[in-house]
Order: sequence, then C-alpha cells, then structure tokens
Amino acid sequence: MVKVPTKLVSWEEIVEWAIGLGKKIEASGWHPDMIVAVARGGYVPARLLCDYLGVTDLLSVQSQHWVEAARAAQKAIIRNAFSIDARGLRVLVIDDIVDTGETLALAKEFIGKAWGPEEVRTAALQWISPVAKFKPDYYYIEVKDWTWFQYPWTRLEDLMQFMERIFKEDERARAGLSDEELRSLFREWYGVGPEDFGSYWQLAIERLVGEGKVDFRDGKYYPSRGLLRG
Amino acid sequence: MVKVPTKLVSWEEIVEWAIGLGKKIEASGWHPDMIVAVARGGYVPARLLCDYLGVTDLLSVQSQHWVEAARAAQKAIIRNAFSIDARGLRVLVIDDIVDTGETLALAKEFIGKAWGPEEVRTAALQWISPVAKFKPDYYYIEVKDWTWFQYPWTRLEDLMQFMERIFKEDERARAGLSDEELRSLFREWYGVGPEDFGSYWQLAIERLVGEGKVDFRDGKYYPSRGLLRG
Repeated sequence: MVKVPTKLVSWEEIVEWAIGLGKKIEASGWHPDMIVAVARGGYVPARLLCDYLGVTDLLSVQSQHWVEAARAAQKAIIRNAFSIDARGLRVLVIDDIVDTGETLALAKEFIGKAWGPEEVRTAALQWISPVAKFKPDYYYIEVKDWTWFQYPWTRLEDLMQFMERIFKEDERARAGLSDEELRSLFREWYGVGPEDFGSYWQLAIERLVGEGKVDFRDGKYYPSRGLLRG
Repeated sequence: MVKVPTKLVSWEEIVEWAIGLGKKIEASGWHPDMIVAVARGGYVPARLLCDYLGVTDLLSVQSQHWVEAARAAQKAIIRNAFSIDARGLRVLVIDDIVDTGETLALAKEFIGKAWGPEEVRTAALQWISPVAKFKPDYYYIEVKDWTWFQYPWTRLEDLMQFMERIFKEDERARAGLSDEELRSLFREWYGVGPEDFGSYWQLAIERLVGEGKVDFRDGKYYPSRGLLRG
C-alpha cells in the first residue's frame, strides 16, 4: 500500500491548469492591472497568467510560514516586506496551492494595506477545500482527498525529502539499499516511479550523500548515524 | 525560405538548461543567499534555480525597456522600485535571455545601490553574444546566430504577434486565409508548426478576432482595415 499518495504534476498539466484558471478569471469579467506572485510557489502560475491575461506588471511578495521556536506554533509572515504605490490598480495575487490558506490571506491583507490598490483578488491553481480556512476568489481544481501534488518546480527539493524519509523511517533501509532496491522502495512508498523524476533522481541521491544524510559503501545506500539520530 | 527562424523551447529543455546553469554556479564555488528574478522573463528560471540551489529567499524586480516617445529611444528603467535590506547577502539576479543586456545590467546596478548586498552576480539561460553589451557572470547557452527563442511562458503573447505579422505583412492574407492556409503560411514564415502551440493556437486566433485585428467571415480570416492602417 502506498504510504504517501503522490501525483507528479507535469508541465503540460500546469499549462492546462493555468489556462483553465485564466479562463475563469476572464469569464468573471474582472481584469487585473497587476499580478503578484506569492514566493516561491506562485512564480510559475503567475508568469503563465501574465501571458494568458496580457498583464505586464508582475511583482512578488514572500508570504510564508514561519516556525516560532519558542511557541512551537506556525504563523504566516511577510519576509522582506516593501511598499509600492498601487493606487487605482486591480491586483491579482497568485499561489500554486491553497492548503490552510494563511499565506495567501496574509499576502492579500498586506498588499491591501501597504500598497493601497483599488482591489485585491486571489487565485490558485488548486484549493484543498477540506483544510483551507480561506477560499481564493479563483481556483482551477478543488482537491478533496489527500494527495501530495508534486509540482515540477520543487522536483529536487521534494525528491530529496521523499528519499530522506525512506532512509529515516523504513527499517529495511538500515540493512543497506542497492540502487534497484531504493527505486523499488520509493515506488512502494509514493506510488510514482523514479523514472518520472528524470535527471533529478541521480542529483537527489548524490546530494543526500554529499550532505552526510546517506552513506554509500560497497554499492549500497545506508541512512547515516546523523540522520537516524536527528 | 523561413522569414523568422523560430525555436520553440520546450519545458523539458528549460529544465535541462536551468539544471545546467545551476551546475555552472555550483562549480564556481559561489552560493547565493537570495535569488532575484528580472520580471517577467526571469520568473521561471529563478524558481527552478531556487529548487536546484536550495535557496528560499526569492524576490523580483521589474527591469524593462521603456520607449520614450519623445526621443523615440529605448532605455531601461526599474518599474515599481522598492528597497529591502540585503546587507551581508550574496544576491543572484536571473533573466531568461540576455540580448542587449541593458535590463539585467540595470537590475544589478539597482540592487547593488538600493539594497546594500555583499555581492550581486548575474545569470541567464541564454546569452546572445554578438549583440550583448553585457556578459552575465553565468549563462548556459551562448547564442551566435539569429533565432527567435520562443519560451513556453510567452507562448500566447508571441503567437499572437507572430500571427499578427502575417496578416499585416503578407499580401496573400488580404485575399483571406482558410484555417488550413493560415497554418501553412505560419509554417512557411516561422519554420515551426501550429501543432507545437497546442491549445494556444485556437486561443490566439480568437483573441485577434476579438481585438478587431483579424476579421472572420465565410470561413476565412482577413486582416482588418485597422490592422492594415496601423
């Protein structure tokens, strides 16, 4: 049984979703003067929406979760906050996926207060409706079941985390994994094949070895002591 | 003979080029703390480089050409300029392609002066060496011959301009073009097939009709009077 159901989103799907989102915005009769990407997830969708909607003004804000160590609580903050004059402008703020919705809600609030635009609306390619406290004005796909949507612009980062989890949590990894065994375990955990990651696969395992999280000896990969302790 | 040699860059090539660019940066021994995309062209490369280099701080600046009507001259300007505190940080500024290099050079200068970073370096997927007055610190492909690199994030905008040029400049269009004739003329002009543009093809021709640049009657497309006069 797959432990972490994962859907590898292709670039072609991203384009299809962005066009679909663009059509929804168009159909609403509202047209933005400026598009703001929520960094980092909103960058690619924002650029594609600029193309579809013919918008030339493109900026970004960093709205992200920040772990407050002292309270062990998470709270969204704006990093590197700045102000511009957006008076009279209709602003569309875009992210890739809305889970809790905190980062997108905060980005909207920040822009509305600090930049003085006429109006701020929000959009996302995907909206996880069961967990979101915030519903974007526009979204293309409503996600109801739990699936990890693996976007093509976080392929290396996600793949390294996916592999790391296997080495940390799967006891079979402690006896060492050949390349073939790692590939097979990966498919068992995530339901997607290593071949879908192209050249990122080799990069990811090399990085984990380079970072000292995985040891490689006698043709097998082992979790490092540091990884098992951490 | 093809009038405008065009190379449709695929998403897979963009990923390959971004990884190649990332490897060059890595090999130089220099690691950025922050990545800044030049809007709008640098958005996708910047996001992919964040993934490859493991950089979480991502911002953008709008450095672009601005036509000064009075002087009929072009000059690069920073739109919606803002300041953040980047003291002590190594900043990598990224664009897709460097032609004259003015926008990337200006972005570097602006960030260096206004944000106070420790160092600013520049990168681009492609560098057109015969025309560029500015060489980025890192690039993946040196372009020497004249080819229009059509990136996947400007597919609709470019396609509309490509079609518009045919209707405006090709005398054969004045007698009206069936869908099949438009497709064939397009291939003759640009050397790439309409099928490579996927669903953007239909969107582009519909937009041109909607904008009044192309008339559609009796199953044929004609340049509008406005387009021919303009």
